[in-house]
Amino acid sequence: MTGSWATFGADLHLDLSAAVRGGRGLRAALTEALREAARSGRLAPGTRLPSSRTFAADLGIARNTVAEAYGELVAEGWLTARQGSGTRVAERARPRRAAGAVPVRRPARRRGPAYSLVPGSPDLGGFPRAAWLAAARRAVTDAPNDAFGYGVDVRGRVELREALAGYLARARGVYADPDRIVLCSGFSDGLTLIGRMLRARRVREVAVEGYSLDIHRELLTRTGLRTRPLWVDGAGARTPDLGGLGPRTGAVLLTPAHQFPTGAALTPERRTAAVDWARTTGGVILEDDYDGEFRYDRQSVGALQGLDPDRVVYFGTASKSLAPGLRMGWMVVPPDLMEEVLAVKGRVDRSSSALDQLTLAEFIISGAYDRHVRGMRLRYRRRRDQLVAAVAGKVPVSGIAAGLHAVLDLPAGTERALVRAAAWQDLQLEGLVRYRHPDSAMPPREALVVGYGTPSDSTWTPTLAALTAALP
Amino acid sequence: MTGSWATFGADLHLDLSAAVRGGRGLRAALTEALREAARSGRLAPGTRLPSSRTFAADLGIARNTVAEAYGELVAEGWLTARQGSGTRVAERARPRRAAGAVPVRRPARRRGPAYSLVPGSPDLGGFPRAAWLAAARRAVTDAPNDAFGYGVDVRGRVELREALAGYLARARGVYADPDRIVLCSGFSDGLTLIGRMLRARRVREVAVEGYSLDIHRELLTRTGLRTRPLWVDGAGARTPDLGGLGPRTGAVLLTPAHQFPTGAALTPERRTAAVDWARTTGGVILEDDYDGEFRYDRQSVGALQGLDPDRVVYFGTASKSLAPGLRMGWMVVPPDLMEEVLAVKGRVDRSSSALDQLTLAEFIISGAYDRHVRGMRLRYRRRRDQLVAAVAGKVPVSGIAAGLHAVLDLPAGTERALVRAAAWQDLQLEGLVRYRHPDSAMPPREALVVGYGTPSDSTWTPTLAALTAALP
Repeated sequence: MTGSWATFGADLHLDLSAAVRGGRGLRAALTEALREAARSGRLAPGTRLPSSRTFAADLGIARNTVAEAYGELVAEGWLTARQGSGTRVAERARPRRAAGAVPVRRPARRRGPAYSLVPGSPDLGGFPRAAWLAAARRAVTDAPNDAFGYGVDVRGRVELREALAGYLARARGVYADPDRIVLCSGFSDGLTLIGRMLRARRVREVAVEGYSLDIHRELLTRTGLRTRPLWVDGAGARTPDLGGLGPRTGAVLLTPAHQFPTGAALTPERRTAAVDWARTTGGVILEDDYDGEFRYDRQSVGALQGLDPDRVVYFGTASKSLAPGLRMGWMVVPPDLMEEVLAVKGRVDRSSSALDQLTLAEFIISGAYDRHVRGMRLRYRRRRDQLVAAVAGKVPVSGIAAGLHAVLDLPAGTERALVRAAAWQDLQLEGLVRYRHPDSAMPPREALVVGYGTPSDSTWTPTLAALTAALP
Repeated sequence: MTGSWATFGADLHLDLSAAVRGGRGLRAALTEALREAARSGRLAPGTRLPSSRTFAADLGIARNTVAEAYGELVAEGWLTARQGSGTRVAERARPRRAAGAVPVRRPARRRGPAYSLVPGSPDLGGFPRAAWLAAARRAVTDAPNDAFGYGVDVRGRVELREALAGYLARARGVYADPDRIVLCSGFSDGLTLIGRMLRARRVREVAVEGYSLDIHRELLTRTGLRTRPLWVDGAGARTPDLGGLGPRTGAVLLTPAHQFPTGAALTPERRTAAVDWARTTGGVILEDDYDGEFRYDRQSVGALQGLDPDRVVYFGTASKSLAPGLRMGWMVVPPDLMEEVLAVKGRVDRSSSALDQLTLAEFIISGAYDRHVRGMRLRYRRRRDQLVAAVAGKVPVSGIAAGLHAVLDLPAGTERALVRAAAWQDLQLEGLVRYRHPDSAMPPREALVVGYGTPSDSTWTPTLAALTAALP
């Protein structure tokens, strides 16, 4: 809608009065009203504005206020001021809508299903808000001023790296030196970084588990790497097959403590086979220790990294133990890869907030992290036991010694229909098929990957009931 | 150092007693002691361990405890257990130091100079710790559970995008729709993302200001783009020259509100020229509004983005207004580039912590952000006035209408010597030369870029005295 000064001036009084009553400055309100009028075309390009003296008198405000508003809009390019021609709306100030502009798609605001057992999330209702805030208060209050600045160390704050080194050695058997820890904003961020490092050293292919997260394979592909699937069975990934992949395969991505998604623990023989392959070929093992904290039988399984810290890049995050929303992750990098990793990371620390890093350090050192993990472990273990009891006699269940998910095997030809039928019953399930590497030659297996960590405490019981009702 | 069971067993009693007195579990302590012994070679590969029964009797502990520790270490690959051969230290468990491993270089722990006027940092001592913590408390307490999960929207939390849209329209004249805001972890992160997007649309070159941050040019180069310098003078970058760069130049990176580092405001004519170039050629303007909040003369200068939201990607951050350590930035993206930007960003939200996003939203909405900016603006303005007064009559000063730095011109042939001499006097200064694009044909200019925002309040006065003493 295009208009002249006459049709515009009339409304301006009202707009300005309202703005000033609302506590805004007169000059700011006037500037904004004029800018918006030029932007929207309410004042057409070329329209001559009254002199500041006339306009000020009209509005009953000081001339300086008008002159300053004009000056600001001239500086911004909305108005032009030329001797003899007065102040005019600039010819080019009207915004042009790009032809064929694509309207932004809002993410569909579907109402989610009432119940979800999709794996990959901890119980978000379990986040220790009060304890986290208490740690934040101590951390932010005590932080040295330089914590608010640009990080001088691209690895991240040393306070957190030291706290993690102690924790990882104690809880996960990781051989961790704070100097070799590099903080990142989650596993995806770390994997992308290592993918770029591998590309920089001319690696072409990475072996991955034949059942694994498609999103992780996609991240590797984006860095220019091909992925090749290993068979996965009840003993984890078949690492003895690594030797047969040939020299183009320069790394392998594994989930040794609790294979995702099948839930197997990598056996000692296969751990040794992976390390032997890496030593013989110069390959790199990428260990995704995504839920190592949550183990329910008495036999804990430490990280593979401890077996050969020179050949394993260890990845951990706070995403399962605390919350994915924190975007906090860490890598322990072999000494002879450190320079290459830092070279790829660049000169700028683009990882997480230094205040969050200090908060997590405080959270670990104060013992709150251990307490939280212990509490959640009990909670998840109880759910696991209830799940096992509920499905007993209906379907075989496996992968239950650890983590936040279990695998329920299904009769051949039923997985897809069952997942669909459950969706109709307002229960979101995920089948094993979506984790299968497209190039894998493994025999077909049909199963559900049940994330029993996902529901909140209040929905857990009905969710479990919906699951058992959906099973054959 | 390699040893046998006999030399090892003797110390174990003491180690275990100490661990248990220290509150650790007996089994955990035993597992760790054995693991460490295998790792370090204190127990040589092949060493046969006593049976769990014998060992338990020796140590005076329950047999189960020993059996469990053995089991855990077998699972991890440290020990082997074979019928008839007993439990032995695994042959391959000894870590091999990579030949020629590069020792990690610790960042040099030089004592920094006592005084620094290096530009690019706000006064870190001014961070509003109490107000930030209060906002965090409200935000984390009130956060919906899904804020702790994986972000479902790669643009970031809608609460912060809405708060920013209001703020940017009001304070910077930005035409901002929350749907078109994309959060990032600072300008470097955002620029890298946009650089990748430009590469994906086959852009080869980006025009940059002839004086600009080398680190930003380097980020563009890393994404595969060439940078070409524009001349910079007292009216900002010479955007009328854009037309002469040819069709390979698909974007231009500008600092319109306060050219970095020369401090000029881009004139209305040059703003218009930039927009005209973008409209005519389909080019993209990248607007780095790095310190737009801090303007000291009455004439404020809004963002260039408002002139044509369809052709300008606007970048802002909390790095100057609050603290770089927060790693919080935002982009306002033209509608027809949105899909491409999101495609490059990928399926995973790797930006900042959702809790920090909610905290900043609360900080803005509650008015704390405006209060903080107002307070800091007064503080910086006072410093600027003191700087101008202190150097009056010695050297010409410019770029002082805004921001956290000023430019002091120097006689030809003196810049380098002056910066060096100041370093000897414990004052870190930066010359203009380091910001010069290597391909620029601009006539040489020698000057200091003085970051008067950098010192803390307590060091400001002596820092200023050191500067005036260093000047010719």
